[in-house]
Amino acid sequence: MVKSEIGYSTVDAITVRGLNLSTEIIGKLDFVDMIFHTTLARLPTAREKVMVNALLVTTADHGITPSAIATRLTYAGAPEALQGAVAAGLLGAGSVFLGTMQNAAEMLLEAGRELSEDAGDEQLREAARALIQRHKQERRAIYGLGHPVHVHGDPRVAALRELSQAHGYYGLHWRLMEAIAEVLASERGKPLPINAVGGIAAIIAAMGLDPLIARGLSVIGRSAGLLAHVMEEKTAPIARELWELVLRDDPRNVLP
Amino acid sequence: MVKSEIGYSTVDAITVRGLNLSTEIIGKLDFVDMIFHTTLARLPTAREKVMVNALLVTTADHGITPSAIATRLTYAGAPEALQGAVAAGLLGAGSVFLGTMQNAAEMLLEAGRELSEDAGDEQLREAARALIQRHKQERRAIYGLGHPVHVHGDPRVAALRELSQAHGYYGLHWRLMEAIAEVLASERGKPLPINAVGGIAAIIAAMGLDPLIARGLSVIGRSAGLLAHVMEEKTAPIARELWELVLRDDPRNVLP
Amino acid sequence: MVKSEIGYSTVDAITVRGLNLSTEIIGKLDFVDMIFHTTLARLPTAREKVMVNALLVTTADHGITPSAIATRLTYAGAPEALQGAVAAGLLGAGSVFLGTMQNAAEMLLEAGRELSEDAGDEQLREAARALIQRHKQERRAIYGLGHPVHVHGDPRVAALRELSQAHGYYGLHWRLMEAIAEVLASERGKPLPINAVGGIAAIIAAMGLDPLIARGLSVIGRSAGLLAHVMEEKTAPIARELWELVLRDDPRNVLP
Amino acid sequence: MVKSEIGYSTVDAITVRGLNLSTEIIGKLDFVDMIFHTTLARLPTAREKVMVNALLVTTADHGITPSAIATRLTYAGAPEALQGAVAAGLLGAGSVFLGTMQNAAEMLLEAGRELSEDAGDEQLREAARALIQRHKQERRAIYGLGHPVHVHGDPRVAALRELSQAHGYYGLHWRLMEAIAEVLASERGKPLPINAVGGIAAIIAAMGLDPLIARGLSVIGRSAGLLAHVMEEKTAPIARELWELVLRDDPRNVLP
Repeated sequence: MVKSEIGYSTVDAITVRGLNLSTEIIGKLDFVDMIFHTTLARLPTAREKVMVNALLVTTADHGITPSAIATRLTYAGAPEALQGAVAAGLLGAGSVFLGTMQNAAEMLLEAGRELSEDAGDEQLREAARALIQRHKQERRAIYGLGHPVHVHGDPRVAALRELSQAHGYYGLHWRLMEAIAEVLASERGKPLPINAVGGIAAIIAAMGLDPLIARGLSVIGRSAGLLAHVMEEKTAPIARELWELVLRDDPRNVLP
Repeated sequence: MVKSEIGYSTVDAITVRGLNLSTEIIGKLDFVDMIFHTTLARLPTAREKVMVNALLVTTADHGITPSAIATRLTYAGAPEALQGAVAAGLLGAGSVFLGTMQNAAEMLLEAGRELSEDAGDEQLREAARALIQRHKQERRAIYGLGHPVHVHGDPRVAALRELSQAHGYYGLHWRLMEAIAEVLASERGKPLPINAVGGIAAIIAAMGLDPLIARGLSVIGRSAGLLAHVMEEKTAPIARELWELVLRDDPRNVLP
Repeated sequence: MVKSEIGYSTVDAITVRGLNLSTEIIGKLDFVDMIFHTTLARLPTAREKVMVNALLVTTADHGITPSAIATRLTYAGAPEALQGAVAAGLLGAGSVFLGTMQNAAEMLLEAGRELSEDAGDEQLREAARALIQRHKQERRAIYGLGHPVHVHGDPRVAALRELSQAHGYYGLHWRLMEAIAEVLASERGKPLPINAVGGIAAIIAAMGLDPLIARGLSVIGRSAGLLAHVMEEKTAPIARELWELVLRDDPRNVLP
Repeated sequence: MVKSEIGYSTVDAITVRGLNLSTEIIGKLDFVDMIFHTTLARLPTAREKVMVNALLVTTADHGITPSAIATRLTYAGAPEALQGAVAAGLLGAGSVFLGTMQNAAEMLLEAGRELSEDAGDEQLREAARALIQRHKQERRAIYGLGHPVHVHGDPRVAALRELSQAHGYYGLHWRLMEAIAEVLASERGKPLPINAVGGIAAIIAAMGLDPLIARGLSVIGRSAGLLAHVMEEKTAPIARELWELVLRDDPRNVLP
């Protein structure tokens, strides 16, 4: 039988995870409750809610990103289809930008599997060294470190760490991420600070969530930022100017 | 200059709409605040927040929808790219499913332009009749009415109306939507109840939001439901069975 | 019954539009034959094949377009999902860029409905004037004219017209498109030449194809160009540099 | 400098890979020529053209596939945006369906790297055994074998093999694919025939093309089939019936 535990409909009611959408959800659950309710079949605790809100706002927007550019250029071509413009921006949330939170969380969970919460610093450095070596051998990337713009350290990390400490999510996975940064920096002889991806991955791992949810939350969060870019593109468009700027950078393109 | 008012970055800070993402947003704003902050450059009032949460949870999920099917089949083909699976599900949010909130809100705003908040019932019916005639002449759809499953009335509408009444958003646009339903039902000689799209459109219009935001919120809301379907498809897959069910419906397809 | 005339499968064979894929299609039909076979349930004539090849190569690529930028930025974020990068580039094929061939063909078919193939020049100008007035009244765009770069005339139009003349597709719809350009230019007091979209729309209309096929062919054609951009982005990436170029245009962004 | 070798524009001309689009491409190159020209910066030989046409028609369509379903449901929701419907169908071309040609070609190229064209049968079986063991150890899938419907063998494989033999592309990579099938079948004690993905991967490897091009061609080919499904959905819609069929399979959904 093709059956989803998420929900079903009758002539008179819509049921989502056992609750009546009209009488038990609308006006009673907020959106973060609903993310938990649909995805995990339970409501979040207060501190889970704080953390998920933090992840969503962290990924929502930071100005002209590759996803914002893709969305704006797509909206300029097809303004009748906002959903396509947002989708275009989301499609880059892969293993290099944004979606990479999933890959980083998988990395931390894998490396942390045999460590206990009270692992000592040297034990963590050991695990970090093993992970780095294994990833090098298998030519897999190490996620969550460095940033092309924030070269002295990603400013979001302090905020995410502080919040994790305040709400009981600063533990093994954060410390492991820090150990990886430390070992790699000492190998390379220059600092390689944790970035927002690394911080978010540590939080997801500490919360015991599936790494796929990390990518999922980044997609939900970013969809809000992309809506903002569509709205701005509608009233104060920059897509054509942006395109022209890129064309003019190659002198073979001769514009009027 | 290619410049967005939404945000910019320096080596040390990310600024979103004038606030420092790390010190003034993370841990301070929740996700609905952030939707307002990025899109409208202001925070929501308490009652706006209630309503936007209601719109997001209303659109998030109701089981096996066309968008959930598209997402699940896409995830089954490309499980390494959750973002593509979610995007596939969002792409149907157009003028017929889901995205139609935008079209319905545009319809209500256009028809309500020359009416005041205290318009009488007969005046509203007059406006409804004019709208229906104009749409028929121009072969444009009338949005927000009827439902293929909820034939006696969409159960979400009562909840949305009640919430609108409780928070001061039950006014001209809701009453106009009701007048359209009434006039059309009397023309056709059978009831044609308002659906969730009509209710949401009335709320968006009453809140003074751009109709494009209606479609945008439905895209954000639905992305949460689609994440839930991806998570379920990962652990309890139904995509292949669903596909087989469809194939078997045509006896020319002969499966092993 | 959920049944498509396009095809079905048994344990031993795949049938597409009545032909056995393995024994009657692979190695026997080429790709343009297959576009006709799947979409129109017949093979193309020789001259139809020439024209469809021309439309596909015309839309395939012209360097750094908005769709190429969207594809390259998406590939940079998710190199494991080429399909997402190509999809991102295609999503902008709407009513303003690329997909606008559909809108232009619809416009020509509507305006040409009451004209015969041997309509005189003055009759065409008359129809053009009526169309322009109607579109202005209904605030609908007029498609197929002008180009932001090719301000003296779109160089592709001469090639498309010549090919149409050589193969018997230069008739009412091309002449109507030319009449629209002429009338509008005289109204504005400056030339407003036909662009590739206008030429392609005239060809689609002359071939008697559904305007939706115009947009469809532009999507197929462009997918080839976007594959080329992905392949180049893989070996000679420009996405990050492009992003940086855009960021640096706003001095509030301070990069290292 | 942000520069693509693929093309550039001036006020008077569009240049694609060194050729003038208007005078040297339109009407002179056909679409498969153009795929080679944009992607590989050269024209195909006659036998390359035969093979690429075969790959494109093989992937174009086989009735109600997951991608066709995704496209049709998306079109039903947003008929104003054909490009979104086609994109939704393409997004599933990942590591499990369709796009898997890339993964299979990578597998064959990797395994074939140290073998010469005249490797003996036992040497090929040896390489196949090593590959199977390595993939098992690293928990990587083995691609190109078996089919849920064509359980006695994928009917397209014979056609693809024959064409490869006729045009000089039946060699090391086909034989390696066959050896893998043979070794795995003998391990499992039941036949595990090569599928179309395996055949196409062998062709791509034999042609010396980048595996990414395999996925790219499947995306181009499938876009034609998806256009056909959109056209049929427009005139003979099945999306709602399909949705209802799926809903009715779970008796908790009670439809009117």
